[in-house]
Amino acid sequence: MVLHLVPRWSMWLFWATPGWRKTAGALGASVKQRLMNYPWGSYSPWVCRSYSSASRSPEVMLTYERYPVQRLPFSKVSEEDMATFQRIIPGRVITDPEELEACNVDWLKTVRGNGVGVGIQRNLAVNPQGGNTGMVGGSVPVFDEVILSTALMNQVISFHNVSGILVCQAGCVLEELSHYVQEHDFIMPLDLGAKGSCHIGGNVATNAGGLRFLRYGSLRGTVLGLEVVLADGTILNCLTSLRKDNTGYDLKQLFIGSEGTLGVITAVSILCPPRPKAVNVAFLGCPGFAEVLQTFTTCKAMLSEVLSAFEFMDAECMQLVRQHLHLASPVQESPFYVLIETSGSSAEHDAEKLGSFLEQVLGSGLVTDGTMATDQKKIQMLWALRERITEALSHDGYVFKYDISLPVERLYDLVTDLRTRLGSSAKHVVGYGHLGDGNLHLNVTAEAFSEALLGILEPYVYTWTAEQRGSVSAEHGVGFKKRHVLGYSKPPVAVQLMQQLKALLDPKGILNPYKTLPAQA
Amino acid sequence: MVLHLVPRWSMWLFWATPGWRKTAGALGASVKQRLMNYPWGSYSPWVCRSYSSASRSPEVMLTYERYPVQRLPFSKVSEEDMATFQRIIPGRVITDPEELEACNVDWLKTVRGNGVGVGIQRNLAVNPQGGNTGMVGGSVPVFDEVILSTALMNQVISFHNVSGILVCQAGCVLEELSHYVQEHDFIMPLDLGAKGSCHIGGNVATNAGGLRFLRYGSLRGTVLGLEVVLADGTILNCLTSLRKDNTGYDLKQLFIGSEGTLGVITAVSILCPPRPKAVNVAFLGCPGFAEVLQTFTTCKAMLSEVLSAFEFMDAECMQLVRQHLHLASPVQESPFYVLIETSGSSAEHDAEKLGSFLEQVLGSGLVTDGTMATDQKKIQMLWALRERITEALSHDGYVFKYDISLPVERLYDLVTDLRTRLGSSAKHVVGYGHLGDGNLHLNVTAEAFSEALLGILEPYVYTWTAEQRGSVSAEHGVGFKKRHVLGYSKPPVAVQLMQQLKALLDPKGILNPYKTLPAQA
Repeated sequence: MVLHLVPRWSMWLFWATPGWRKTAGALGASVKQRLMNYPWGSYSPWVCRSYSSASRSPEVMLTYERYPVQRLPFSKVSEEDMATFQRIIPGRVITDPEELEACNVDWLKTVRGNGVGVGIQRNLAVNPQGGNTGMVGGSVPVFDEVILSTALMNQVISFHNVSGILVCQAGCVLEELSHYVQEHDFIMPLDLGAKGSCHIGGNVATNAGGLRFLRYGSLRGTVLGLEVVLADGTILNCLTSLRKDNTGYDLKQLFIGSEGTLGVITAVSILCPPRPKAVNVAFLGCPGFAEVLQTFTTCKAMLSEVLSAFEFMDAECMQLVRQHLHLASPVQESPFYVLIETSGSSAEHDAEKLGSFLEQVLGSGLVTDGTMATDQKKIQMLWALRERITEALSHDGYVFKYDISLPVERLYDLVTDLRTRLGSSAKHVVGYGHLGDGNLHLNVTAEAFSEALLGILEPYVYTWTAEQRGSVSAEHGVGFKKRHVLGYSKPPVAVQLMQQLKALLDPKGILNPYKTLPAQA
Repeated sequence: MVLHLVPRWSMWLFWATPGWRKTAGALGASVKQRLMNYPWGSYSPWVCRSYSSASRSPEVMLTYERYPVQRLPFSKVSEEDMATFQRIIPGRVITDPEELEACNVDWLKTVRGNGVGVGIQRNLAVNPQGGNTGMVGGSVPVFDEVILSTALMNQVISFHNVSGILVCQAGCVLEELSHYVQEHDFIMPLDLGAKGSCHIGGNVATNAGGLRFLRYGSLRGTVLGLEVVLADGTILNCLTSLRKDNTGYDLKQLFIGSEGTLGVITAVSILCPPRPKAVNVAFLGCPGFAEVLQTFTTCKAMLSEVLSAFEFMDAECMQLVRQHLHLASPVQESPFYVLIETSGSSAEHDAEKLGSFLEQVLGSGLVTDGTMATDQKKIQMLWALRERITEALSHDGYVFKYDISLPVERLYDLVTDLRTRLGSSAKHVVGYGHLGDGNLHLNVTAEAFSEALLGILEPYVYTWTAEQRGSVSAEHGVGFKKRHVLGYSKPPVAVQLMQQLKALLDPKGILNPYKTLPAQA
């Protein structure tokens, strides 16, 4: 069952405006279209029926069958609960199994919940859900948690076209927001592959990183305010639009990156940078990882304030993108590829800086081949090679995904190390990611999920990372899948304090249970 | 009494290395000099004797005499406690009244504590202290809290000269750190007037803003890790050096800006930006505040990625700087002055951008006179006009200080409004600050502190700010002086959650009591 938060509520789930339909057009036709596909006004019986596999293949195992996890003693949704929900948010309770499928299965098809029935007083567990584009099973129920969707909360509340401060509801789709602020000559401070589906509320709840992190930094700096519904239904209004505010503890930080386990983010105030007048992208081939690193150092020194992205991918990534998506490399075959983006206020100055840089790296042999783009279409084509790697991987079979922070010098060693360790038991071992942020996306593909392969990968990958004092989750978060590996990156004192914060903010543990924190002994 | 945390301890106050003296040279001769002025190895009896006013004038009233505040039932330091302290940190307990004076009185001389004797088990209250340069009485005791100074924890732990990540102890002086990283071609991400005395630990504990905020953003983004001692003496080690780490809740954020009320910051990991190759400063005269705002909008569009500061000051500020510090204005007398700084990687490109901008603003009459500097000496001279306003104000008499965030369009209205309201009851009402961040420093001077004047100013200034949904403390924090005005910027739900966090992390309330949060009913 899915409960949609309504755009104008004054208490959590207990108040609804009759005029909710009007909000659908707020962000343009495509959002409207998306929303109108829901069968508002009628809904099926409350029981989530058996899984219909007709439209989906391969079938995804239920999470609690695949992973060792026990249902906690939450209540189950009763017919009385259903009647209550129907009364308070008529037409916005979804129980149809076909429809529920999209909410129960994450897009990677690796975890699948069995969502049913809401209510704090009733001790019902709640699973807040945005665009359901997470990588770690944080946005789908594990058992029968009620899914609380933010999809209808898709309104821009205000935009200040001098300061660039955007205030909007949590369910706004990132790409729609991008288009919206671009019309006012600003850009969103974050960009990621899932932009077409992910919600800004989910981005903030997971502290999403992405492609502009190098230039505009973390959401912890760019998010200025939040409105959050706490576990007891209280609304915490910290939705201010001030760049500086040192009045007491910065409570919004608690909710950024806490994956809906401490509260449900319902609105966001965020600082948007001015839209750069000139954007250039260079796509380069490098003969080795040492050269990739030296190219990065040179790049930081020579492109400095106009550098907005430094991404890398290895030859196997390019091979998969070619094989599964029929995209061709724009440069000679190389062991490594680098994508560099500049954004600035003067096309002439930026081109001059980029030109000097390319002359330097080509002349010194750090780069063996390269291409450059200034027009939007070619820029998008080059970015697609990097952004669509995840998609290419999902066509390659079951994907074991790791998202690691490491000292940049050791970043690729883990990939080569794993290739040796895995030999022919994996189809592909690939490395790519946000080199400028020390963030490696390490992916291993196989024909199917295999316990044996998992045993070779884990805890090896985590131990290796911990030895380098890295992070076992750089930007994807913890969700359901990584909650037992927190200890590789955080000391026991820290994990204990996290448990205490959870107990303080959500004493009944009803908010996104089985997520973020390890199960307590 | 002052307890110095020792540079290499494994438990809070309960372990000390005999080699602590060696650390004094870590940040160069000036720090060493400063430290050697303390009479290590001997100390006076534990009682804080009567205040010696010989070297200081005017005498500062005791905080609890000036403000309505009641001592909480903490223990008092016993002779047994003193013996314990002496045993565990020999030679590092200060009780000499003359020496204590600098620790008990804040540099504004507006609050004065009566610090005496430490120990968690003994229910003794603790006042963590860095450089004691705060504006809100957060760094000095109110009654007899034990001052815990970080002055001896002044070592750089590591610096990575590719990533620019600095890890250092909390007691490092900001300016010393600036010099240190500049030698490696980096700069600190923050800069403020008090840099010569303030400690990085104090900067983080108060979430200091300052002059580089516009370009490099908040410490919430640039601080990568912290080591914190919790109220029960447990060490929370989150001292990682990763740009991205989404493993669980970001605990360090709790301590950034919490003014030592939730834990004592003992070490900091911080990301330093590359040192810009070219720095330019322009100092301009504007005919009105509307023109200041338009100059800012033009500046953001034309200088964009190279803009690193946009500061403003009014004619009365310039008058005070001239009168008390004998600094002359480099431009024609104007109602407003603007200081613009650019930092970039190409001197030629930056000069070209700045040149076009100046041509535009002079041509359109937004600016009536201006001067520009590229050499270090003249740059410092121009910056001094802005940075030394606080100093000039302190020569003008008693200063009522407000540090407000407002929508930029309304920023100066509060100043003109107050001038009318105060008439001749104030010496000066001045406005200056970080316009680029929407941050106004509003200061009112008078011959002496006056309850009557205070009554005209407060709560008027706070109500005015709340009506604009501004912040009653943009960057100075809450400390002792602002704790009862939190409610003007934060709703009751937020203040209540802050109290709950305080109770969770410091159940006995011994960490910096009477600070940050309003006294509970």
